[in-house]
Amino acid sequence: MGDGQATALRPGVPYDRATLYARGAWRTFTGPALGEIAFPLGGIGTGTVSLGGRGQLVDWEIFNRPGKGVVLPYSFFALWARAEGEAPVARVLEARLQPPYRGGFGLPTATVSGLPRLREATFSGSYPFARVAFRDERLPVTVSLEAFNPFIPLNDRDSGLPVALFLWTLENQREVPVEATLAASLLNAAGYDGQAALQNRRHPLFGQNLNEWVAQPVGPATLMGLRMTTRKYEATDARFGSLALATPWPHVTGKLRWERAGWWDDVQSFWDDFAADGRLEGPAEPEPSPDGETDVGTLGLVVRLEPGQRVTLPVVLAWHFPNLYNYWNREEAVRGKRLGNWYATQWPDAWAVATYVAEHLERLERETRLFHETLTTSTVPAVVLDAVSSQASIMRTTTCLRTEDGRFHAFEGCHDRAGCCPMNCTHVWNYEQAVAFLFPQLERTMRETDFGHNTLPTGHMAFRTLLPLVGATWQFHPAADGQMGCVLKLYREWKLSGDTEFLRRLWPAARRALEFAWRHWDPDRDGVMEGQQHNTYDIEFYGPNPMTGAFYLGALRAAEEMARALGEEELAATYRAVFEKGWRRLDRELWNGEYYVQDPGEQASQRYQFGPGCLSDQLLGQWFAAVVGLGYLLPPERVRAALTAIFRYNWRPSLEEHASCQRTYALNDEAGLLLCTWPRGGRPPYPFPYADEVWTGIEYQVAAHLIYEGLVDEGLAIVKSVRDRYDGVKRNPWDEVECGHHYARAMSSWSLLLALSGFAYDGPAQAMGFAPRLAAAGGGLAPDGSGGEAAALDAGGSGAGAGQPGSGAFASFWSTGSAWGLYRQESLDAAGGRSRGLQVSLEVRYGQLELRRFGCGWPAAWRPSPWTAAEARLLQPGEPPQPLAVTVVPGDDGPPAVGVTAGPERLPGVVFAGPLRLQAGDRLELELEL
Amino acid sequence: MGDGQATALRPGVPYDRATLYARGAWRTFTGPALGEIAFPLGGIGTGTVSLGGRGQLVDWEIFNRPGKGVVLPYSFFALWARAEGEAPVARVLEARLQPPYRGGFGLPTATVSGLPRLREATFSGSYPFARVAFRDERLPVTVSLEAFNPFIPLNDRDSGLPVALFLWTLENQREVPVEATLAASLLNAAGYDGQAALQNRRHPLFGQNLNEWVAQPVGPATLMGLRMTTRKYEATDARFGSLALATPWPHVTGKLRWERAGWWDDVQSFWDDFAADGRLEGPAEPEPSPDGETDVGTLGLVVRLEPGQRVTLPVVLAWHFPNLYNYWNREEAVRGKRLGNWYATQWPDAWAVATYVAEHLERLERETRLFHETLTTSTVPAVVLDAVSSQASIMRTTTCLRTEDGRFHAFEGCHDRAGCCPMNCTHVWNYEQAVAFLFPQLERTMRETDFGHNTLPTGHMAFRTLLPLVGATWQFHPAADGQMGCVLKLYREWKLSGDTEFLRRLWPAARRALEFAWRHWDPDRDGVMEGQQHNTYDIEFYGPNPMTGAFYLGALRAAEEMARALGEEELAATYRAVFEKGWRRLDRELWNGEYYVQDPGEQASQRYQFGPGCLSDQLLGQWFAAVVGLGYLLPPERVRAALTAIFRYNWRPSLEEHASCQRTYALNDEAGLLLCTWPRGGRPPYPFPYADEVWTGIEYQVAAHLIYEGLVDEGLAIVKSVRDRYDGVKRNPWDEVECGHHYARAMSSWSLLLALSGFAYDGPAQAMGFAPRLAAAGGGLAPDGSGGEAAALDAGGSGAGAGQPGSGAFASFWSTGSAWGLYRQESLDAAGGRSRGLQVSLEVRYGQLELRRFGCGWPAAWRPSPWTAAEARLLQPGEPPQPLAVTVVPGDDGPPAVGVTAGPERLPGVVFAGPLRLQAGDRLELELEL
Repeated sequence: MGDGQATALRPGVPYDRATLYARGAWRTFTGPALGEIAFPLGGIGTGTVSLGGRGQLVDWEIFNRPGKGVVLPYSFFALWARAEGEAPVARVLEARLQPPYRGGFGLPTATVSGLPRLREATFSGSYPFARVAFRDERLPVTVSLEAFNPFIPLNDRDSGLPVALFLWTLENQREVPVEATLAASLLNAAGYDGQAALQNRRHPLFGQNLNEWVAQPVGPATLMGLRMTTRKYEATDARFGSLALATPWPHVTGKLRWERAGWWDDVQSFWDDFAADGRLEGPAEPEPSPDGETDVGTLGLVVRLEPGQRVTLPVVLAWHFPNLYNYWNREEAVRGKRLGNWYATQWPDAWAVATYVAEHLERLERETRLFHETLTTSTVPAVVLDAVSSQASIMRTTTCLRTEDGRFHAFEGCHDRAGCCPMNCTHVWNYEQAVAFLFPQLERTMRETDFGHNTLPTGHMAFRTLLPLVGATWQFHPAADGQMGCVLKLYREWKLSGDTEFLRRLWPAARRALEFAWRHWDPDRDGVMEGQQHNTYDIEFYGPNPMTGAFYLGALRAAEEMARALGEEELAATYRAVFEKGWRRLDRELWNGEYYVQDPGEQASQRYQFGPGCLSDQLLGQWFAAVVGLGYLLPPERVRAALTAIFRYNWRPSLEEHASCQRTYALNDEAGLLLCTWPRGGRPPYPFPYADEVWTGIEYQVAAHLIYEGLVDEGLAIVKSVRDRYDGVKRNPWDEVECGHHYARAMSSWSLLLALSGFAYDGPAQAMGFAPRLAAAGGGLAPDGSGGEAAALDAGGSGAGAGQPGSGAFASFWSTGSAWGLYRQESLDAAGGRSRGLQVSLEVRYGQLELRRFGCGWPAAWRPSPWTAAEARLLQPGEPPQPLAVTVVPGDDGPPAVGVTAGPERLPGVVFAGPLRLQAGDRLELELEL
Repeated sequence: MGDGQATALRPGVPYDRATLYARGAWRTFTGPALGEIAFPLGGIGTGTVSLGGRGQLVDWEIFNRPGKGVVLPYSFFALWARAEGEAPVARVLEARLQPPYRGGFGLPTATVSGLPRLREATFSGSYPFARVAFRDERLPVTVSLEAFNPFIPLNDRDSGLPVALFLWTLENQREVPVEATLAASLLNAAGYDGQAALQNRRHPLFGQNLNEWVAQPVGPATLMGLRMTTRKYEATDARFGSLALATPWPHVTGKLRWERAGWWDDVQSFWDDFAADGRLEGPAEPEPSPDGETDVGTLGLVVRLEPGQRVTLPVVLAWHFPNLYNYWNREEAVRGKRLGNWYATQWPDAWAVATYVAEHLERLERETRLFHETLTTSTVPAVVLDAVSSQASIMRTTTCLRTEDGRFHAFEGCHDRAGCCPMNCTHVWNYEQAVAFLFPQLERTMRETDFGHNTLPTGHMAFRTLLPLVGATWQFHPAADGQMGCVLKLYREWKLSGDTEFLRRLWPAARRALEFAWRHWDPDRDGVMEGQQHNTYDIEFYGPNPMTGAFYLGALRAAEEMARALGEEELAATYRAVFEKGWRRLDRELWNGEYYVQDPGEQASQRYQFGPGCLSDQLLGQWFAAVVGLGYLLPPERVRAALTAIFRYNWRPSLEEHASCQRTYALNDEAGLLLCTWPRGGRPPYPFPYADEVWTGIEYQVAAHLIYEGLVDEGLAIVKSVRDRYDGVKRNPWDEVECGHHYARAMSSWSLLLALSGFAYDGPAQAMGFAPRLAAAGGGLAPDGSGGEAAALDAGGSGAGAGQPGSGAFASFWSTGSAWGLYRQESLDAAGGRSRGLQVSLEVRYGQLELRRFGCGWPAAWRPSPWTAAEARLLQPGEPPQPLAVTVVPGDDGPPAVGVTAGPERLPGVVFAGPLRLQAGDRLELELEL
C-alpha cells in the first residue's frame, strides 16, 4: 500500500518500517561480522565444509560426523600475481585474521597463520550461494569468490553431491598485463576420522595416502586435478575414502605432494616455490606416504590477464567417504552397524563426483541460480529471505543423513563432533517445513519410517528411530505432540504430492497411532488430551493444555480428511465428532480471556508444568494446520487474540532484565521470544525446563503464525530479532543452535514464505492458490534491489483501502511435490488510482504441474466471489499465447470458522475447462476483475 | 631532563615520547578489552584461579594442572540489594557477557549465563592486585572488587598460600538505607581431576562430597564459612582435596548446599531464594552427596548501608589439593610418582589455609601492598611496570611447581590441560630474572637441582629434570646455551645471596660442566664453541656463532670470578686465558660490520642454521653478563652496534608483509621483534625453526639490553609493542604465550627494571649501586600518577647536559637475597639550574641489608670520581637521624672494556666506616656532590 510506508507500526514493534520491510537478497558482512561466519558447502547427506567469513575453509564435516572447529591442515587458496615490471606478490586468499588471538602456542601453522593475507573482505550470503569480495590495493588484480553446492529443489540427486564449487574471479587493475596463479592446496585426508586434532601432515591415522595427477576428458575439455586416496584402509572402513581437487581450466601447474620433511619445511618449501614465480615444481610420480603421515597437494590455475581483463577460475573440491556407521546409539541391535551414504551408491569415488560435476557444471549452476533467482525474486522482506534461505541449509548439514537405502534421516542437531539426539525425532520434526516443501520425496521417506517402521502394532510410535532399520525400535514412552504431528505431516505429504497410494499405504499405521491416543491420552474420547503427555520440552505435561491439545485436534481433522479420501466415511465422522467435542472443551476450559492455559488438575504439584502461563507454542498445532490448509482448529478470534498475547508477553525487545537459570540463546539487549511467561502470575516454582529459553524454531513458527493472522509487523519483528542475533559478530547466520548446531526446528522458517504468500495447494484436487499477506509498495521486483519496500496488508484494518488487493505488486517462490516456480500478482489499476482487479502470473520453472483450479484472495478481504470476470492465457516458450477457457468460481462462503478446511478451494478464482498441464518454462497468465 | 620531552625519539621508533614514557601503575581495560583478560590468583606452587575481565572466575587451575577454560559450575559472586522503599535487585556480579556467543547449546548454564549482570566494568590490573569497578545505575549501591593473593618478595611461604582474596566494596548511592547481601557460591570440587568438562553438579568423579558450616574464632572475630571436603578419595589420591569459602564478616547468611534436584532446579531454587529477600535458607546438617554428584554452597555477607556509607566485605577462597603426581613424563623411573605440594606440608587442609589467612590478613595485605607500592613508585614508564609486574605472575601459575621437598621447579609453559616441556629447562630458564631477584631462595633450589642432580660425572648436564629426584636423569644430548647459562646463573645466585658456602657446594659440578664443554664444544680451548650445539631453538647450531658463543664467554668469566673467590687462582687464570682467546676470535671471525653472524663452516648445508642472519639472541649471553654485573664479553662498541642492528632489522613496526610458515605470535599490523632476519641476504632455504617467530621473552631481553646500552627509546618501543599485543582484545595481558601459556622466558621482563635502574649488587662484597638510564622529568613519584613523564638519559649524547646526573628525580624498587626496598635520587640543584650533585635515599622496606659500599653513576657519564664530597645519614624509625662516616671513592678507571667486571665497585660512591646494617624501615640518605 502506498501509504503503508508512512503508517506507524503496531504498538510494541520497536523497529521502523523501512528497517523491518527492507528488501534484499544478499546479506553482507564485513569487519568483525566476518568472525563467526561459517557457510556450509555440501549436498544433502554428504556433510559439508564451510566457507568462513574471511574466505577460509573451516569446519571440515565431510567425514560422516559434525566437526565444528575441525581444521584440515594446509588446505587453503592462495594467489600469486605479477604485473609486468613489478615485483610479484603472493597471498593467502583470505582476509586478515581477526582477534582474539588465543592459544598457548600462538596461532597454528596448520592454517598458515603467519602467511600474508588480504586487507579486507566483504562476505555476502544468500543460500546456497556465498560470495567473498576481497580488497587489497597492493594486488594488481581484484579478487572475488563465489562458492556453492548445487541446490535444485525436487532434484535430490544433484542436490546431494559431495562437492564444493569455488568460482574465483580475477580482474586486472593495471595498465599492463598481469600473470597470476590461483593455487588450491589440500591435505589428503583419506583415513581421517573427523575427530582427531590435526596439526600438520603427521598423524597415526595417516599412511599409504596416495596423491595422483589425473587428466580426464570431459566433453571437449579436460578435467585436471589431484585424486587423493588411501591404501591403508579397507573399502568398508569408516575412515576409507577419497578426495578430488580438480579444474576444467586448461592451464595448470601443481605440486603432486609437498616435500616430506620435518619441522615446517613442507609448507616452507611450498610457499617459497610458489611465491617465487607462481609455478610449482615437485615429484611427478605417485608414491604412497610413509606410515604416520599424509601428503598435501596443490593445484594451480595459471592465467595471463590483459589490462582490464576479467576471468573466472573454477575449482571443484569433491569428497567421498562412503561408510557411515551408527556411532551414536547404545542399543545393541544397531550400535556400530554400517548405514552407508546414499551418495556413494551414485558415484564410486570422489574423482567420479568431480567428473560428474564437470560434465554437468553448466546445468547444475544454471538450475541452482534459477532456484536462487526465483526465491529471491519473492517480494518479501530481506529478513524473511534470510531466515528462509539460511535455515534451508540445515538439511544439507550433518544434522541430516541420507542412508544407502535412499531414506532421509536427521538428528535434532549437532554436537561439535557428533550428532545430537538421534534420530528423526517426531516432535522436533513437527516444526520443519523446508524439506517438506523443497524435497518432498525425501520428506516422504521420513513418513515411511514413522509409519512403516516406528509405529508398533499398539499404535505407540517410537518417537526416535534406530538405524539401520533392522526391526528394532527405540524404547521410551511416546511423545504426544510428536505422534499427533506425524498424522498431520502425513496429511501434508499427501496434499503436496497428490499421491493417494502413498497415503493408502501408510494410513493403517496412522489410524493405529490415533487409536493409541484414544487409549492413552483421551480414553473418554472427548477430544482433549489428558494424563501424561511427553512432549518436545522433554518432560510430561499433565492435564488439558493447548499445545498437545491443538496438535491432537489437528491430527483428528487431518485424519478425518484422509479417512474420507480413502472412503472411510464412518471413521471420518468419528474423528470429526471427537474433534468437535475437543475444540469446544479446550476453548471453554483453557481460555483465560487472553490466551490458552494449562489445567494440570490434580497434577498441579508435579514439576515442569506451565499452568496459567502464556506458552509460545500454545497454537503450534494450529500453525501446522494453517500451513497444510486445514483451517481453524479453534475459534479464529481466539487464535488471533492468543497470538497477540504471545507477542505482547513473550517477545522481549531486550532481555537485559530477564533471569534464566536455563540455557541461554539470547541475552543482554538482544530481543527474543521466551518459550513461556506468566503475565498474570502463577509461575510454578519449577516450570518446565526451557520455559525461560529462546528457540529460533519456535520464534519462526510464531512469526509465521502471526503473519497468517495478518499480524505481519509483529511476525517480522520476531524474524528480525532472530536474524539480528545471528549477525556474524555474535553468532553464525548459517548455524542456528538450540539443542545442537544446525538445529532442525529452525527449518520452521520456511513457513514464513508460505504465510506471506498465503500459498495453498491441494495435490489430489489439483488446486492451487495464493492469498498474500503483503504487497510490495513501489513494485520493485528486483531480487538484489534494496530500494523497494513492502507493506503489510492489515487483516484487521478498518481503513478504506485496507485489505484490498491490487495496490502494489507481489511475487513469491512456490513449490509442490512436482514443480516449483514463481507467482506474481499486480494491480490492474483503473482511473483514479483504484484497482480494478489483479494481473496474475504463475510460472513453472522446474518440473511439471497439473491444475484444475487456481485461486487468489486475501484473508482480510474475505468475501464470496470478489472476481467478476477472468481472462486466462498459457504462455509456452516459442509459442504464441494460448487463450484458456476458465470459469470464475467463488471461494467458500462466510468468514473463517472452526473445522473448515482452508485449502485453495476456499479462495475465489477460476476453474479450467480441463486439467491444465504446465511444464518448466510455461506460464499461466490471468486477469481477474473485481 | 627537562628538555627531553621536546626531543624527537630516535629514528625508527614510531611512537611519540608522551606515549612511550607515559607513567602509571595500573593498566585499565573496558569494553571489548575485557574479553581476553584472565588475571591469575594464587600462590607460588599452588595453582591459580583467574579473575576474568568481567569479574568472573575463570580457568580453575588449582587441581595440580593447567586448566585453560576449565569452569567450576555455579561458582560466582552475586549481589542482592534493596533500597528502602524500592524493589530489590539481584545480579550476578559480573559485567555483561560479550560476543561471540558460541556453542551448539547456547551459552552454558554452568556459568549462569542467563542471569542478569551489570552493565559495564573497568578492569584494572597491577600485579598482584586486580580491581574491577562495576557501573550499573540500576543498582542502589556502587560495587567494586579488589582481588589478590599475598605476594611478598623473599617471603616464599606467605607468597605460596593456596588462596584467592576478594575484597568487595559497596557504597550506598541512595538517600535511604540499603540492605544488601553479597553471595559467593562455590561448587564442592573435591574429587575433580582438573580436566573433565563439568556442566553442572553431576559427574562420575563426584560423590561423598561434604559441605559443612564452620565458625572458627580468629582473634576477637569469628571466621565463618563453608568447609568442602570429600570422603570418596583416599588422602593420597590425586583427586583428594578440600576447599574453603570463608569470611571474617560478622553477618552472614548461607545455603549449606543447593537443592539436590534434577534439570536446573538446583540453581533455580537458589536464585529464587536469593532474589526474593537476600536471605538464604537450606538444610543445616551436613550430609555427603550421593554418588555421581556434588553440592554447591553459598556464603552470603549481609550488610545494611546508611546513605553514603561504604563497606568492604572480605571473602577468602582457599584450596588444598596436596597430591601432585608426575603425569607428564614417560620415563619409568618417575612416571606416575607422587611429588606432593610444598604448601600441603605447611597447612593441613583448605580450612587451615583460610584460618591462617584470616589470622594474618592485616599483615599479608599490608606487606603485599608495600611491595606493590614500592614497585610502582619506580619512576619507569607504565609499559615497563606492566611488563615487569604482569610477567612476574608466571612464577605463580601452573608453569611452576613447588614440590613437597621445598624445591621450586618449572615447566617451560602450559598446554591448556597439562604442563608443557618438563622440567627446569636450562636454556629457557636462561632468560628468566624475576624469580632470581624476588625469591632468590627458590631460584637457588633450581641450581641445587641443576648442579646437585642433573650434572653427570662427565659434566654433561641433563637440561631437563625428571621429578621426583630419585636419581634418574633425562636422556638427551646437552644444550650448549643451557649448560653455559647454568654457570652464569650460579654466579648470579652467589652474588645476590652473598652465600659463598652455597657456591662452594655446587662449584665442583659447575667446573665439570665447563670441562665437558672443553671436551665437546671447544676441544682446542680457543674460547669459541664449535661442533653440534643444541640450543633453545630445539635444533643444533654448527660452528662458531655469537649466541652459544657469548654464553660460553660469559660462563668462562663467571667461572673465573667464582674460582678466584674460592681460592682457585690457577683455574681462574685458565678460564681467563680461554676467555681472552675466545672473545677475540669470535669478534674477529663473526663480525660482519653491523652484527655478529654464524659461520657454520663445513656444516653450511645442514638445515636449521642462520649463517649470515642477524639473530635477535646473538648477545643473549652479554645481556646476562650485564644483569649480573660481569661487564663486557665483547667490545662495547660492537655490542651497541649489534643491538642497533637488531632493532633496525628485526623489530618490525608492522608485520603485515611478513611471511612465516612457523607459529604466529604477532601478525597483521602488530609490531614485533623477529628472531632472525637476513638483511644482507643469504637466508638459508630452511633456516632454524622459530626464525620467523616473535617471542616476548626475547623481546624483553633485547629491550633490556638496548636500555643497558642507553638505547632507551628503542628498548621501550619493543616493550610497548609487546604490551600492545597483549591488550585484552587480542590476548590476555597476564598470559604471554610461546611454547605454552605463561611461558617462563617472558620473565626476562624483570631485567627491564634492572636495566633502567642500572642496579648493581655484590653480596659477597656487600656493595650496591645504581646507574639509572632514565631520569624522571617533573619529579612526579606518585605510583598512580599518569602525569609525570620520564626521559631517557642518552648514553651517547653529546649535548652539554646529556648524561649529567641530577636533572629530575628517579626512583626504583630494588631487591637482593636478603632485602628489598626503594631507591631514590634527585638532583641537588644549584643556582642557575645546574646540578651540584645528587640527593640519594636507599630505603629498606623488607628484610635486612649490610652494606660496605654504595655507588651512583651513569654509564654515559663514565669518569673517575665524579663525587667530590659526600654526606651520609641513617634514618631509623623513631630515632633521630644518625650521621655516618663515609669515604668518597672513585669508580674503576677508564671506559668500559672487555673482561672488566661491572659490579657496584665500578661505580663512584662511598665506603662506610664499617658494615652498615639496615633493617626494614631504615633509610640511608646520601648527598653526593659533584
